[in-house]
Amino acid sequence: MTAPEIDPVVESTAADIAEMRIRGAATIADAAAEALATQARRTNVTDPEAFRAELRVAARTLYETRPTAVSLPNALRYVLRGMAGETVSQLQATTIEQAEVFQRDLADAQATLGEVGANRLRDGDVVMTHCHSTDALACIEAALEAGKSLEAIVRETRPRNQGHITASQLREWGVPVTLLVDNAARRYLDQVDHVLVGADSIAADGSVINKIGTSGLAVCARERGVPVMVAAQTIKLHPDTMTGHTVEIEMRAEHEVVGDHERTEIGTEPDDEDLQVENPAFDVTPPRHVDAIVTERGQFPPESIVTLMRDLFGETTGEPWEP
Amino acid sequence: MTAPEIDPVVESTAADIAEMRIRGAATIADAAAEALATQARRTNVTDPEAFRAELRVAARTLYETRPTAVSLPNALRYVLRGMAGETVSQLQATTIEQAEVFQRDLADAQATLGEVGANRLRDGDVVMTHCHSTDALACIEAALEAGKSLEAIVRETRPRNQGHITASQLREWGVPVTLLVDNAARRYLDQVDHVLVGADSIAADGSVINKIGTSGLAVCARERGVPVMVAAQTIKLHPDTMTGHTVEIEMRAEHEVVGDHERTEIGTEPDDEDLQVENPAFDVTPPRHVDAIVTERGQFPPESIVTLMRDLFGETTGEPWEP
Amino acid sequence: MTAPEIDPVVESTAADIAEMRIRGAATIADAAAEALATQARRTNVTDPEAFRAELRVAARTLYETRPTAVSLPNALRYVLRGMAGETVSQLQATTIEQAEVFQRDLADAQATLGEVGANRLRDGDVVMTHCHSTDALACIEAALEAGKSLEAIVRETRPRNQGHITASQLREWGVPVTLLVDNAARRYLDQVDHVLVGADSIAADGSVINKIGTSGLAVCARERGVPVMVAAQTIKLHPDTMTGHTVEIEMRAEHEVVGDHERTEIGTEPDDEDLQVENPAFDVTPPRHVDAIVTERGQFPPESIVTLMRDLFGETTGEPWEP
Amino acid sequence: MTAPEIDPVVESTAADIAEMRIRGAATIADAAAEALATQARRTNVTDPEAFRAELRVAARTLYETRPTAVSLPNALRYVLRGMAGETVSQLQATTIEQAEVFQRDLADAQATLGEVGANRLRDGDVVMTHCHSTDALACIEAALEAGKSLEAIVRETRPRNQGHITASQLREWGVPVTLLVDNAARRYLDQVDHVLVGADSIAADGSVINKIGTSGLAVCARERGVPVMVAAQTIKLHPDTMTGHTVEIEMRAEHEVVGDHERTEIGTEPDDEDLQVENPAFDVTPPRHVDAIVTERGQFPPESIVTLMRDLFGETTGEPWEP
Amino acid sequence: MTAPEIDPVVESTAADIAEMRIRGAATIADAAAEALATQARRTNVTDPEAFRAELRVAARTLYETRPTAVSLPNALRYVLRGMAGETVSQLQATTIEQAEVFQRDLADAQATLGEVGANRLRDGDVVMTHCHSTDALACIEAALEAGKSLEAIVRETRPRNQGHITASQLREWGVPVTLLVDNAARRYLDQVDHVLVGADSIAADGSVINKIGTSGLAVCARERGVPVMVAAQTIKLHPDTMTGHTVEIEMRAEHEVVGDHERTEIGTEPDDEDLQVENPAFDVTPPRHVDAIVTERGQFPPESIVTLMRDLFGETTGEPWEP
Amino acid sequence: MTAPEIDPVVESTAADIAEMRIRGAATIADAAAEALATQARRTNVTDPEAFRAELRVAARTLYETRPTAVSLPNALRYVLRGMAGETVSQLQATTIEQAEVFQRDLADAQATLGEVGANRLRDGDVVMTHCHSTDALACIEAALEAGKSLEAIVRETRPRNQGHITASQLREWGVPVTLLVDNAARRYLDQVDHVLVGADSIAADGSVINKIGTSGLAVCARERGVPVMVAAQTIKLHPDTMTGHTVEIEMRAEHEVVGDHERTEIGTEPDDEDLQVENPAFDVTPPRHVDAIVTERGQFPPESIVTLMRDLFGETTGEPWEP
Repeated sequence: MTAPEIDPVVESTAADIAEMRIRGAATIADAAAEALATQARRTNVTDPEAFRAELRVAARTLYETRPTAVSLPNALRYVLRGMAGETVSQLQATTIEQAEVFQRDLADAQATLGEVGANRLRDGDVVMTHCHSTDALACIEAALEAGKSLEAIVRETRPRNQGHITASQLREWGVPVTLLVDNAARRYLDQVDHVLVGADSIAADGSVINKIGTSGLAVCARERGVPVMVAAQTIKLHPDTMTGHTVEIEMRAEHEVVGDHERTEIGTEPDDEDLQVENPAFDVTPPRHVDAIVTERGQFPPESIVTLMRDLFGETTGEPWEP
Repeated sequence: MTAPEIDPVVESTAADIAEMRIRGAATIADAAAEALATQARRTNVTDPEAFRAELRVAARTLYETRPTAVSLPNALRYVLRGMAGETVSQLQATTIEQAEVFQRDLADAQATLGEVGANRLRDGDVVMTHCHSTDALACIEAALEAGKSLEAIVRETRPRNQGHITASQLREWGVPVTLLVDNAARRYLDQVDHVLVGADSIAADGSVINKIGTSGLAVCARERGVPVMVAAQTIKLHPDTMTGHTVEIEMRAEHEVVGDHERTEIGTEPDDEDLQVENPAFDVTPPRHVDAIVTERGQFPPESIVTLMRDLFGETTGEPWEP
Repeated sequence: MTAPEIDPVVESTAADIAEMRIRGAATIADAAAEALATQARRTNVTDPEAFRAELRVAARTLYETRPTAVSLPNALRYVLRGMAGETVSQLQATTIEQAEVFQRDLADAQATLGEVGANRLRDGDVVMTHCHSTDALACIEAALEAGKSLEAIVRETRPRNQGHITASQLREWGVPVTLLVDNAARRYLDQVDHVLVGADSIAADGSVINKIGTSGLAVCARERGVPVMVAAQTIKLHPDTMTGHTVEIEMRAEHEVVGDHERTEIGTEPDDEDLQVENPAFDVTPPRHVDAIVTERGQFPPESIVTLMRDLFGETTGEPWEP
Repeated sequence: MTAPEIDPVVESTAADIAEMRIRGAATIADAAAEALATQARRTNVTDPEAFRAELRVAARTLYETRPTAVSLPNALRYVLRGMAGETVSQLQATTIEQAEVFQRDLADAQATLGEVGANRLRDGDVVMTHCHSTDALACIEAALEAGKSLEAIVRETRPRNQGHITASQLREWGVPVTLLVDNAARRYLDQVDHVLVGADSIAADGSVINKIGTSGLAVCARERGVPVMVAAQTIKLHPDTMTGHTVEIEMRAEHEVVGDHERTEIGTEPDDEDLQVENPAFDVTPPRHVDAIVTERGQFPPESIVTLMRDLFGETTGEPWEP
Repeated sequence: MTAPEIDPVVESTAADIAEMRIRGAATIADAAAEALATQARRTNVTDPEAFRAELRVAARTLYETRPTAVSLPNALRYVLRGMAGETVSQLQATTIEQAEVFQRDLADAQATLGEVGANRLRDGDVVMTHCHSTDALACIEAALEAGKSLEAIVRETRPRNQGHITASQLREWGVPVTLLVDNAARRYLDQVDHVLVGADSIAADGSVINKIGTSGLAVCARERGVPVMVAAQTIKLHPDTMTGHTVEIEMRAEHEVVGDHERTEIGTEPDDEDLQVENPAFDVTPPRHVDAIVTERGQFPPESIVTLMRDLFGETTGEPWEP
Repeated sequence: MTAPEIDPVVESTAADIAEMRIRGAATIADAAAEALATQARRTNVTDPEAFRAELRVAARTLYETRPTAVSLPNALRYVLRGMAGETVSQLQATTIEQAEVFQRDLADAQATLGEVGANRLRDGDVVMTHCHSTDALACIEAALEAGKSLEAIVRETRPRNQGHITASQLREWGVPVTLLVDNAARRYLDQVDHVLVGADSIAADGSVINKIGTSGLAVCARERGVPVMVAAQTIKLHPDTMTGHTVEIEMRAEHEVVGDHERTEIGTEPDDEDLQVENPAFDVTPPRHVDAIVTERGQFPPESIVTLMRDLFGETTGEPWEP
């Protein structure tokens, strides 16, 4: 059997995910499903086993681009689970259809989640956001569509200032926005009715892994008596954590924090080794600082999310591309 | 009596304070005392009452540049309280001498405070800093001089990144530095032995007014079991707060947070009024989140600082430039 | 098809619920089931579709009397779910039987719940109650029947003083009672082994909606180290909250708080609009202040009740009277 | 020496205090000082020692009417401390003058305290009150006079509904009032900027003894992130507590809680001994739930009030009427 | 029917459990299953009903030795549930096989649980232990096998010093150990990454019943920001607690705490009745002080464990030996 | 000048303190004062300067035996401060008299402190103790003498079991005692009205340094709503801590924790270096977990003790034996 041939679309998708041209959990999941469907559609193999091997290699190729983006393996698992049949054409058809189902459900998921989250918001509420999350924004959008009037206090979210994207979207929807540096959040919490954030992934112990700065915000919100709501599609539930795995936190490039010139000014020599810059992309918020996780399957206290995780993904933890 | 004549040095000092070319509480206090001494030295008046009026106007000129910089009125009060005598030359001499005493004590204050703070640090400790405070750094410097080895985790302190100044100073002293965005602080708190910050001012109810972001850091430190130490010379004790006055928080320019171009990208129109940028310079940390305030008079629980305040400044609250 | 004809019993039951002559969650649920059974029994229609329409209108009539009384829709859902068959007489029989099953289970539910709750109480315990809840009292009754000796501290529960009903029932059972104004509760918490309350409804995020004053009591109980136990049949689990809906809090009449004479004395004019009286019937206790929810299906931490809710009611949230 | 002769004014004042016709700490203190002055003015004795004995008996007579009203012994101590001289007429003069000073200072105290407290309130703030305290109201009055606009949420304060008096006063001043049953407080705390209460007395360990229900409110306010401010003149600082004495809590009549008819309905027999009604007048709020104590000497964290207490009253704890 | 004949192995196993020669939950469960298998293997009866009766009596004999050791009834339930068939030889075969399955699964359970727990531990972590738990040690062992380097701080665990066993096992594995008296734990918590304990049993309300001292350690760990991990096979989930039963805490012999000589020295007379020694074997840690429960079925927040309990054991609570 | 000659009594006292034959803060202070008086009484020198040198060397000899026993330097400071005069006989007289005053005050101090502490205890209270403190016991003794009936729950206080001494003393006074291992404390806290402990020393930041295990008990007491009372004479206030010095914690011998035999059994080899035993004598309880510090000068919140410290000892921190 010759080596599996990977379609250029899979490779370009993998590259786009790796370099964050494709980003956001749902976008990644959608792209990954689409890539697998393309691989299935364009295959040249004639042997069913070779087809399966090709799809597995494609899945692994995609998977390895960003292991902390939990929606990616979930998408791959879902599509590969649907790959069934005895001939190549059957395998093609089932894989493609499964990918389509996944993509359709994925779009509905955010809309449904938005409805659920919107139900928690009342007319006149002030919402504080962190980073940019389309799941969180879907809750606001659904509330606006239901005729509720909202205001937003938006943290800029250093180092990449994704709060600017959130602010821009909210302004397009006509939501009055107050933009803050992250440091100013606690000072404004007494004007806030909800802290609303998304999630990079959610662990079986109820922890929420989200953009760096979320956990400090949640701790302050608890101290100020403000409820914290996490909006996250079920593609964010991290199946590996059921078996105790911790979510590896991506460490990002130093230059997001300081440019070369600033670094040189700060250090005692051009390449000062005792001046470290740590730039973790995410942090971990324990469940006791979160009031509700809003998914397209309804809302849950974070301590109960493990039950939903087990219902959806079972207890198996092997990789789907292992034969 | 003609209008009092203000010396150009007073005016340039006032301008430098207003525009933050002179900054840091001790530096401001020192410059203010120096400016008053200069005013006294260069006066052209021959009438004692005119001298007093001139000094009062000079003091008020300096005072009005930055009312939240509490060291400024303290310096002015201190110098004017020493203005005594019946002739202009007596008034000159006493005022100049009082300013000199104040300036000398001021320099000693930071060194003494540093010794006190250093005593709380043990060899091998890791210290997390916020913003740039020479009082806080004095504690680290004294500890280093006592032969203790320290490491520092430095928050960059948006929006003005004064953490870079702190980091640079620490590197000069050979302290290994890890630089973080402010959002990353909670993630690193379990490696930290002390949170060490300065103070812009300290209120009679034990609250610490300091650079925006301090209160959120203190809340997280308490949650993580890390003690919080505030280094502040007694010039930071805000006498107005004894009578319940709250410290007015300076709101700084929007462009420290977003530039014109970013603002335009975020808003829905060039001058989008529903896009507000709030940029408070300071926030308020309640005493229950602070473990000790370190001053040149020793260390105090924040709930006891009012006693020191009353010992030093009495209960009077009138302005010193009022006749 | 002519307009459905509603039986007078349905209408009188609806009126009794609306005007609180029928009150208490189980009593309402029982009456609603009985009313539907009567509607089914006395129908004049001969067409199966007309029968179904009639029952749906009857259910909606009952439902609209008190939307916050969660047991009402649960009862209606349960009975209508059992309406099956192809002829009117089959539909009659199944609906009537389903209502009987519901009513029988309902009676057992409280007894079973009482056994479960009683198991948490030890001989000699002191229980603090709020408002009047037959579910909570069932726990005490079962404990007494098991030979345990208990004492009770009873809050009067302004504005309607339902604590008096609780106290009276406990005295009938021979339980020594100490009656307190609501304000005195914290002072006596150090003598208390359990805070025991019922629930108006329970939300999917683990919140307990119960008589106004419950949440303040729960916060104080946590601060004093006293466990809080909520006794609630599963008819109190609010299915709408699974999709994020918040429970609308009934605002009750001002004259429960102040009479006309008092109002006039307080206000500056007979109809002083700047003197508002707010009289919410219920408040919301977050799950972190509750130790256990006791149901006829066993006890649960509040954070897990969503799982029971999903087991019992599934994920569907449409109204049962919609065709 | 014949038995001291007590003036009828002393006796009627004592009776008025005992039966709460004179109430409120400042009013009691003022009346007690006035009574001592009257005793001194109208004395018939000619022997200095007899004068002193008479005043001491008068003081003790007044003192024993209401030992928990801490302002009473403070007033008596203050006046008797001023009784000096070698002749009866000197003793008369000094005692009367000391009483006048005390009374004058007392009136100023509330006004000064009001200024201090008002400084903590900002324009637009919402204040929640408990019971009726003229010290607390003085803070609001001073804020209104300073041009600040305030709103109030007023707890009715069972069992005696003194909140109605507060509400009525606030309405006279034009403050919009929302009146609540005590149970509803926590539900409205997220709209509140300050909890503002008075104090019956304040203990050396920083505890605040105030109207029953205060401590539960303070616990909930801390949980919701709302600061708690206690307004109390220094006549409320309980000197006995410096030596560890706890403040005895007055237990008031049952019929404030339930009338005869209600009691009979609740109990199992007319004089049901196992139905107790406990009606404590006050409770104890620990210092960690209070943010500031506002006095006419300035504001203090509750943990520092002992220092003020020692400054004002010294360390002596003997009764002033002991020779 | 003659009285059932109990095999000597059952009786010696019962005695060994009672006298703690057999101890540790898994060891007890294994021995109990083995004893039932032996009973089945060696039976002399020929009547199926007599066989069943014999097995039930054997189970009850074993059960009554230590009712708080929850693994015992779980093992008995499991084996008896498998006893099926119509002839004695069928009953023998099924019972023996079920016991074997149980024993095999039991061994795997600890290994699987160890893998799950190990995934929570990172290379270089410091773990604090309490008492001796093979489940907790399995997590450490699996982490070591995965190449992680760990250190341990071991509490001696008065009164029986089982911490010495833990320390000895850890030293065998080459883990550096710091041994402490129990009192010293809080002082060392800032060096600790995980508190890791086993469980005697786990209740449906999420409480963890474990060796006396666990709950105080968990409270301190929460205060210091250290996560608490409980390692417990599912045989520790206490099915009785689903119906509200509390776990009876075994009170152990006084001489574990003080010997006869010490007691005599302390008391005022040889048999001083007012000198009590209380020696509870276990205490109860509420779920809010525990971060994760690690089982062979994965990890769970303590508030969700009731769901697993219901999945595994259903809602039935009758004793398995009841016909 | 010849080397100062140290009296054998000073040397034997120093030895007794070092080897803990003399222990307890007051006993140490008394012995130290007595030793200095003896040195003064028996001196052979004839030169005043030699006398002073001799006393200083004696003080330093005593001081160096146990630097963490704060009463020791306080006693030495107090006595040496009184050493005044121009001749040896004057110096002798003043030193001896000052020592006598100190010793007399010291005895009164405990009795006075006992009265203060007793005032916090009510008839019928249950007190939990840790270690053995005569200051704490003085509070109980005074309460008993005032006719109050008390019960005690006594922690044994590993590793040295000083709780046995406490229990024995309480039994002599007729107080019913329940003795517990330290691990069992939290389980019994809901029966406790006061945690009552002594202090080894008290720091300027309000921290209480006391027998290892105190801080964990205080944390649990706060969590259970039980007030914590520290009984400590002012000789325990550690003057060095005013300048930020931390109190060095004495590390005691390993064999208090494990004997040679046990150590060998635990370790992997006779002298296993990776088996460390840490045996700190004391730990540090932060002020937020302590409700009151009871001294012979009255009671104080721990956050205010610095004020008392400054009143008694001023701000000077030089050693008294420095010329």
